[in-house]
Amino acid sequence: MSIRRIAITTGGGDAPGLNAVIRAVVLSALNRGWECLGIRDGYNGLLQPEEYAAGGLVHLDRESVRGITHLGGTILGTTNRGNPLHYPVKDEAGNVQEVDRSDELVAAVKAQGIDAVVSVGGDGSMAIAHALVQKGLRIVGVPKTIDNDLNGTVITFGFDTAVSFATECLDRLHSTAQAHRRVMVVEVMGRYAGWIALNAGVSGTADAILIPEIPYDIHKVVKKIRERERLGLYFSIVVVAEGAHPAGGQRMVVSKQAGQAERLGGIGYRVAAELQELTSRETRAVVLGHLLRGGTPTTFDRLIALRFGAAAVRALDEGCGGCMVALDPPTVRYVPLEEATKRMKSVPLDCDTILTARDLGISFGD
Amino acid sequence: MSIRRIAITTGGGDAPGLNAVIRAVVLSALNRGWECLGIRDGYNGLLQPEEYAAGGLVHLDRESVRGITHLGGTILGTTNRGNPLHYPVKDEAGNVQEVDRSDELVAAVKAQGIDAVVSVGGDGSMAIAHALVQKGLRIVGVPKTIDNDLNGTVITFGFDTAVSFATECLDRLHSTAQAHRRVMVVEVMGRYAGWIALNAGVSGTADAILIPEIPYDIHKVVKKIRERERLGLYFSIVVVAEGAHPAGGQRMVVSKQAGQAERLGGIGYRVAAELQELTSRETRAVVLGHLLRGGTPTTFDRLIALRFGAAAVRALDEGCGGCMVALDPPTVRYVPLEEATKRMKSVPLDCDTILTARDLGISFGD
Amino acid sequence: MSIRRIAITTGGGDAPGLNAVIRAVVLSALNRGWECLGIRDGYNGLLQPEEYAAGGLVHLDRESVRGITHLGGTILGTTNRGNPLHYPVKDEAGNVQEVDRSDELVAAVKAQGIDAVVSVGGDGSMAIAHALVQKGLRIVGVPKTIDNDLNGTVITFGFDTAVSFATECLDRLHSTAQAHRRVMVVEVMGRYAGWIALNAGVSGTADAILIPEIPYDIHKVVKKIRERERLGLYFSIVVVAEGAHPAGGQRMVVSKQAGQAERLGGIGYRVAAELQELTSRETRAVVLGHLLRGGTPTTFDRLIALRFGAAAVRALDEGCGGCMVALDPPTVRYVPLEEATKRMKSVPLDCDTILTARDLGISFGD
Amino acid sequence: MSIRRIAITTGGGDAPGLNAVIRAVVLSALNRGWECLGIRDGYNGLLQPEEYAAGGLVHLDRESVRGITHLGGTILGTTNRGNPLHYPVKDEAGNVQEVDRSDELVAAVKAQGIDAVVSVGGDGSMAIAHALVQKGLRIVGVPKTIDNDLNGTVITFGFDTAVSFATECLDRLHSTAQAHRRVMVVEVMGRYAGWIALNAGVSGTADAILIPEIPYDIHKVVKKIRERERLGLYFSIVVVAEGAHPAGGQRMVVSKQAGQAERLGGIGYRVAAELQELTSRETRAVVLGHLLRGGTPTTFDRLIALRFGAAAVRALDEGCGGCMVALDPPTVRYVPLEEATKRMKSVPLDCDTILTARDLGISFGD
Repeated sequence: MSIRRIAITTGGGDAPGLNAVIRAVVLSALNRGWECLGIRDGYNGLLQPEEYAAGGLVHLDRESVRGITHLGGTILGTTNRGNPLHYPVKDEAGNVQEVDRSDELVAAVKAQGIDAVVSVGGDGSMAIAHALVQKGLRIVGVPKTIDNDLNGTVITFGFDTAVSFATECLDRLHSTAQAHRRVMVVEVMGRYAGWIALNAGVSGTADAILIPEIPYDIHKVVKKIRERERLGLYFSIVVVAEGAHPAGGQRMVVSKQAGQAERLGGIGYRVAAELQELTSRETRAVVLGHLLRGGTPTTFDRLIALRFGAAAVRALDEGCGGCMVALDPPTVRYVPLEEATKRMKSVPLDCDTILTARDLGISFGD
Repeated sequence: MSIRRIAITTGGGDAPGLNAVIRAVVLSALNRGWECLGIRDGYNGLLQPEEYAAGGLVHLDRESVRGITHLGGTILGTTNRGNPLHYPVKDEAGNVQEVDRSDELVAAVKAQGIDAVVSVGGDGSMAIAHALVQKGLRIVGVPKTIDNDLNGTVITFGFDTAVSFATECLDRLHSTAQAHRRVMVVEVMGRYAGWIALNAGVSGTADAILIPEIPYDIHKVVKKIRERERLGLYFSIVVVAEGAHPAGGQRMVVSKQAGQAERLGGIGYRVAAELQELTSRETRAVVLGHLLRGGTPTTFDRLIALRFGAAAVRALDEGCGGCMVALDPPTVRYVPLEEATKRMKSVPLDCDTILTARDLGISFGD
Repeated sequence: MSIRRIAITTGGGDAPGLNAVIRAVVLSALNRGWECLGIRDGYNGLLQPEEYAAGGLVHLDRESVRGITHLGGTILGTTNRGNPLHYPVKDEAGNVQEVDRSDELVAAVKAQGIDAVVSVGGDGSMAIAHALVQKGLRIVGVPKTIDNDLNGTVITFGFDTAVSFATECLDRLHSTAQAHRRVMVVEVMGRYAGWIALNAGVSGTADAILIPEIPYDIHKVVKKIRERERLGLYFSIVVVAEGAHPAGGQRMVVSKQAGQAERLGGIGYRVAAELQELTSRETRAVVLGHLLRGGTPTTFDRLIALRFGAAAVRALDEGCGGCMVALDPPTVRYVPLEEATKRMKSVPLDCDTILTARDLGISFGD
Repeated sequence: MSIRRIAITTGGGDAPGLNAVIRAVVLSALNRGWECLGIRDGYNGLLQPEEYAAGGLVHLDRESVRGITHLGGTILGTTNRGNPLHYPVKDEAGNVQEVDRSDELVAAVKAQGIDAVVSVGGDGSMAIAHALVQKGLRIVGVPKTIDNDLNGTVITFGFDTAVSFATECLDRLHSTAQAHRRVMVVEVMGRYAGWIALNAGVSGTADAILIPEIPYDIHKVVKKIRERERLGLYFSIVVVAEGAHPAGGQRMVVSKQAGQAERLGGIGYRVAAELQELTSRETRAVVLGHLLRGGTPTTFDRLIALRFGAAAVRALDEGCGGCMVALDPPTVRYVPLEEATKRMKSVPLDCDTILTARDLGISFGD
């Protein structure tokens, strides 16, 4: 079926590079003589068009994507709304129920004369895309994840920006840790996979890195801090992924205070409290969380985002109807949408970056 | 008295530009044929020389200051040790007592043949310098403060770096706040003065800025967030100085949870908890604190630091014995050391940056 | 006369911060209940409105200035067009004549119901503004100069961005100069004043700085390079302002090749050619010129630009009709427009940055 | 043969990340109980040890590699000296002859008790390493190329930094080109391969990209500029790799002036001169060359450099004696040294980045 009109949707969380993808999709489509629409707020623009004074679809021309390659966020609005499989609806009692509105969505896409959709998002968005493809839509996915835990692609846009900024923060904390003789515990994103913690920790010369893939023993981290003190280095940097956890279960907490710190501030606060208690050294927790998700993409992420956007349109042009673009350096290829959703991509314990960290003397608390 | 040998000490907290000051002092001294020593760890190198295998003084030659202009931290070690007026000493029972060791310090300086000292630090360091000058030392102060609250100088090094990084963080949070429809509360340094919050908030287009100089009413901040929602802007950025406080006293807390949040995470967490309760909008707190103190100085701070270091040596060469160098743009001048210590420099309520913020529609919660 | 409608124009060359000024002017005006128009392409939108499909004036509302604080360039189009005092007009023979169209411009402003104009630009724009004020317009000027050579203001936006980027380039060239044992000659902007060369040269640890204010003797620069070689430093960095010139006149060229290099590539190429001949050391010229003028403003420049924009509207609101806003740190004040045009602000030979450079051992070739 | 002592050498040109490699090699070796030496100035420290007051070899311990991960250049001195296969020697008449001193070098390595060498460098260094392996040395190569033209590895350190900085420069030039209605021609490194031009041109939204792999027709570039003018876009950015050349041979020059411009300033100046003549639009050339080679590595390059350094030591530990580490994302593997030297890695004409550029409407002048 030849294509005349496509639509693009951005879903999941914010990630640097979304606008670059949009720009590449729009220009690649227009240069093929296709029309290109943007769906506002995930799929919400199609499901609740009456919410939008100017309509839930935006006509995207060259002018609308000029100068947006390096802008953070997405020109299509919010990203975490309008999940058609679990659409929140208030019942008469005012309680929110989740409703499957995917059939409505499929009908709306067809009613608008949209021949194909480019869906940019994480594993959630890819799962939705997969479900919609089953119902007859033609969709190409563009993978997006800050955490790098999306399966099927070696890497995707947003991750390099997050790692780069986390590394810059570690650089900043180094001089202060040294000048004040402190232990700095830095929590970064990564609920299921420790990629950001690992890559930023190695680049930013952390002394210990705690990741979900390697349950830690806090006493091993203390040992590392003590070793450094014996070398005259009275400061240490510990990077903690938000999904890190102690070996032996969460209850193995050093003290009531540490447990309380975790409930209120997250694992970073817990590790800081434990290290302060066990080392008697001044310890501070810094939570980078929200800072890693937004902002201007690095050049690396800009380029991947542009390549992915163009590849998505090329995939449609070549007749693909239910695939995801993926990076298999140096090239971009297409993989089945299920590839992205069947499992998380966690850090292999024998990957060379883990080996590098160990060679450099960095502790994983194991 | 002609000078043959000077010493340099860095005190207080870490600040970007310390190494640039050191480099300028060393080269300016050497080019006059003077010798230059560095005192390790504040004044500690002179007070506890036996702690240091290689001695508590470092001979600083051209080689030791090559390539350090842009490095964060200080090559002289830790900054917050060795206050001679309140030196911590353990008594027999193991309790720590603070002892005045200033006479010892004066004697040690003279015993080392040190004709003059350049002391780089904040108001605490300037007060120590003033006391030592009374006891016969010749000292020129170089002002250092991240917070810009040091009196006697229009600005000093470290502040521009802190404001620039805080602004970059606001830029990053903007796209995420918008994409997720959140209120982001960003706490920055500034216990007694709101300079960082004000300058970063204006540069980074915050919607509200809460500073110690203007006690806030949380309901005014809520009003601002509501106004934005009426314009279709479902996100807001609130910048909070760590010393901000509500009008009417600290007890005017919205709820028990908000009070608890403050005790554990600081004022930023309190404001976030209050705004979440009062607006029902998803709200997140980000504490930049430790990130603002370290790292590579901006070019602006590098230049001021170099100018200050050179001016300190020039002041000594011109016979000055108890002054502080200060920036009175476009020039550097010398002010009495007392100038720096007699009061905090807070934000004047009618200064043009406050007026600018109000013209731009930014709320101060008043 | 009370104000209901103002217009804003950006003139001269590109400078980082123009959009921040526009944003502050627009919001400050709207928040006073005024209307705000943008004139396209300098004054051209008023003089040749027929050139513009959508009209030569743009209605500026909140939406049009959202998210532009950190964008380079100007949303009002080109900056170097439409000088009303010397407007280029083709005569019948096709030759371009410059015509005074200032009366037409004054009439057009009045016909559009524009009560006052904010003119952002350099000394040329301030001279035009001054002439238009004489003819009855109400204008507040906002100074703009990359080179920092505009009189009447201690500093203005754009300069910090230029110095910062030039310093970053010097940092980059350092490692390569050292690794390859080269002399690197770096030409920066500054036809009449050496501010960029001086500030970047000191911040970026140049070995020699050549500026218009201090005619240089190339043999003194060679002497500096030789001194460094004796210390085992087989590389040097020489920063040259584009307006630098040798003592004794331009004809004092070392060789025919050096003269030719200057005619084709500018003074940087000449100095490089001369140094290569005189030192036999591999020498390279790098011309930063165009790179210093554009791009994202530093936080420092963003803030000054916003403060200037707001102050310009405040000046109008206070009844001012022919002044320029100016920075006299820490405050913004108003100065007569003539202040900006009566002379260039060159580097005083005894200013403390020059003294700092000499203290650091940097040669000015004198 | 078990290893007790290794040496490291850095050769070729400067590249961001050399110090990170050194740090990873040193720590990985020390943590295995090996000793690690640095050879000064390529192999020169072994060939002319008498040139060095402190000897041509440096003992590298933990202290010597602390804090160098992000520093540009190499702590081992200059990189382009001491090629043992073509060592420059002055004969009696003072003429420089190139002499094969590889046997001497092999003897010197053995005399120093060095069991293996890590050689960091480009294709030249890998060819030397290969020759030395034939003569009995045990060497692992670490690939280094700014241009990304080294075969056998998908990418290596230095390239991301070069592309990122070039992209930043394009961003800066954009606003100025637009504000002044100019054509900007930006020459980047890439004598044999167009990787930097391609990646920076796509990321930085160039309008045309000229690379060695695609001979260009200047009239096709003019056509692109004209198309933009018809859309109301009176400015264009053209990126030119230094090895770009016109189809039909170098003599197909538009005018004598363009030919002269090329001889003096390189291909960028030629293209600028031709475009100015053919379009009558103000055109400027900017040569980024030397700026792309030095400075602080990006986080991406830091990490690859650290991974490569650690992998080189691991390779030695595993018994490898004549291989090069290489990136085959997501992993590092070992390839034969010959792999790196048998051919240049040029841009495949059907790679997805070329397709992306074409999809975005970027012209290659073909």
